[in-house]
Amino acid sequence: MLRPRDAVRTLPSYHPPLGGRDGLRLDFNENTVGCSPRVLERLRSLDFEQLARYPEREPLEAVIADFLGITASETLLTNGVDEAIHLLCETYLEPSDEALIVVPTFSMYRIYAAATGARVLGVPAGDNFCFPTEDVLRHITPRTRLIAVANPNNPTGAVAPPDGLLQIACTAPHAALLVDEAYFEFYGRTLLGGWRDSPNLFVARTFSKAYGLAGLRIGVLLGGREQISAVRRVSSPYNVNAVALACLPDALADQDYVRQYVSDACAGRDRLERLYGAAGIPYWPSQANFVLARIGSPDFIRLMRQRGILVRDRSSDYGCEGCVRITLGPRDHTERLIVALQETLEALGLATGAPQP
Amino acid sequence: MLRPRDAVRTLPSYHPPLGGRDGLRLDFNENTVGCSPRVLERLRSLDFEQLARYPEREPLEAVIADFLGITASETLLTNGVDEAIHLLCETYLEPSDEALIVVPTFSMYRIYAAATGARVLGVPAGDNFCFPTEDVLRHITPRTRLIAVANPNNPTGAVAPPDGLLQIACTAPHAALLVDEAYFEFYGRTLLGGWRDSPNLFVARTFSKAYGLAGLRIGVLLGGREQISAVRRVSSPYNVNAVALACLPDALADQDYVRQYVSDACAGRDRLERLYGAAGIPYWPSQANFVLARIGSPDFIRLMRQRGILVRDRSSDYGCEGCVRITLGPRDHTERLIVALQETLEALGLATGAPQP
Repeated sequence: MLRPRDAVRTLPSYHPPLGGRDGLRLDFNENTVGCSPRVLERLRSLDFEQLARYPEREPLEAVIADFLGITASETLLTNGVDEAIHLLCETYLEPSDEALIVVPTFSMYRIYAAATGARVLGVPAGDNFCFPTEDVLRHITPRTRLIAVANPNNPTGAVAPPDGLLQIACTAPHAALLVDEAYFEFYGRTLLGGWRDSPNLFVARTFSKAYGLAGLRIGVLLGGREQISAVRRVSSPYNVNAVALACLPDALADQDYVRQYVSDACAGRDRLERLYGAAGIPYWPSQANFVLARIGSPDFIRLMRQRGILVRDRSSDYGCEGCVRITLGPRDHTERLIVALQETLEALGLATGAPQP
Repeated sequence: MLRPRDAVRTLPSYHPPLGGRDGLRLDFNENTVGCSPRVLERLRSLDFEQLARYPEREPLEAVIADFLGITASETLLTNGVDEAIHLLCETYLEPSDEALIVVPTFSMYRIYAAATGARVLGVPAGDNFCFPTEDVLRHITPRTRLIAVANPNNPTGAVAPPDGLLQIACTAPHAALLVDEAYFEFYGRTLLGGWRDSPNLFVARTFSKAYGLAGLRIGVLLGGREQISAVRRVSSPYNVNAVALACLPDALADQDYVRQYVSDACAGRDRLERLYGAAGIPYWPSQANFVLARIGSPDFIRLMRQRGILVRDRSSDYGCEGCVRITLGPRDHTERLIVALQETLEALGLATGAPQP
């Protein structure tokens, strides 16, 4: 009788939402306006030849390295950041090892780390989801081999102090520290290049959020040349598809487009936070393209859906009882969101503040 | 100091060819004519929305299951067959386990199996690369947890007898048996559905070869519902990109196109084998879209390249000293190949036979 490894048998299944995502999708932190028109134009110019060939990742690693001001040997393109996490876990974690994450956070860190058979320790965030630098430091042991931090964090929008992260890297030189900067563009601070002083540091970036290309699956893992070379060994040479590779230079080139989307999403975030503040709804100030708030009711999600707006229930995340995460995007989507939100809060008897400007 | 796991540090690096693939690409078993025009048309119809959303794999698993006459729960779409192999290794192999492969074969079985820390045993193929059923059976131990067989095999084009494979599945019920049918369309025999009697059997298929979509990265792992459910756990829910998913139904629907390509490639294969036979060059009759021959000289590859034809040196594969693998495709590519081949054999003093009809 064939039995999967114990670590796999006990792994939680991830059930992505199936169909029924009709409406304004403010539930997945996707870019709801879509990518630069240059990217779509490029996609439409592809021909038979490019689809039939095995995709060559390396030339595009040079392009992205150039954009980031690092070298291609510090750059590994991946099939979304999911694959970057998967490969890091596989490169460093044995069943006798420990992985540290700060909870609540992005769920794939735990899944991929646990799949290796390693023990996963969730260090609780501090008050108001503050990054618990001291607690993380206290949990480092000789067995700690991976520490994964989303910065800004998902689903809280909170950020970790750069000094704290570097102190963690320094205290655990035997562990890979992944700083997942999937929401970097909405925040602006980075540890890029930090591996020159802390060779165990990795940074991940994605084209799924600010660039609006979640469908193409483009992530990138950045780190010291020697470590990236090890991670590259466990990666398929053809892990990133040809359409993604072809479109990547155009996506990078149209920074005006990214800037506009980011500016709109950040303005929407401020507006949503003001609305929550005025209504007396607890929320956590965010540095990403979403805001987490304790609205406290499955009714809220249902009523928003009735108004054509999908939002994400995060109730089952650590410390997130009754919390809902809403993604921001372009101005007209923020308009629709605010209208639906005000109606819904009113219907629930929660609209205590004045109407928002 | 951060050290990758021992299994990763000692893993051979795979170096894909970089650039310089100008010419007729008969070196990677890719489809050199490209996919169905319906697929390209579909690709060009994609819009912002589809690129910005996280891709939903499940509805397409139902489509492909329907095409194959199985159920969606027996079907896992993967980022190329590479990922199917990777996930299978991760699901079943521990460092104390053994994996069996028959050499020479596709290199990724060894790489992914070794990455888990398991011991990889290469059972040598028999005379003329015959599938060594008895030798494989003899090497099965209680520690055997994965047996990977490409059928037809790459780079030899040889096939394994279905009875032999089922006997292996039956003798090693504690091991996953992967029958990788990447070249199924050129051969026509399958073990699809065999997991109903042998629950440890998996079959893999790809859209990279006959369908001409290597760039899109679409593989599929097929097996019993319970085992596929375990493998699904270690897979990212968003492992297959949105373009691949959007194009898949059109690729499946245009079977006329696939039939024409397969028929042309098989006719080219026969013609190449006759030419080798007439020239007295040792070759191995193939059931795939390529032929392996012992032409014996790096000069051959260089001279073919000078004539604009890329072929693949397989000299470093087990038992393949001096061997070259050439991919077949549409008629006009076979024409160009035959002309270049005759000129090259003549230049090398190897053209002993009469000109080919």
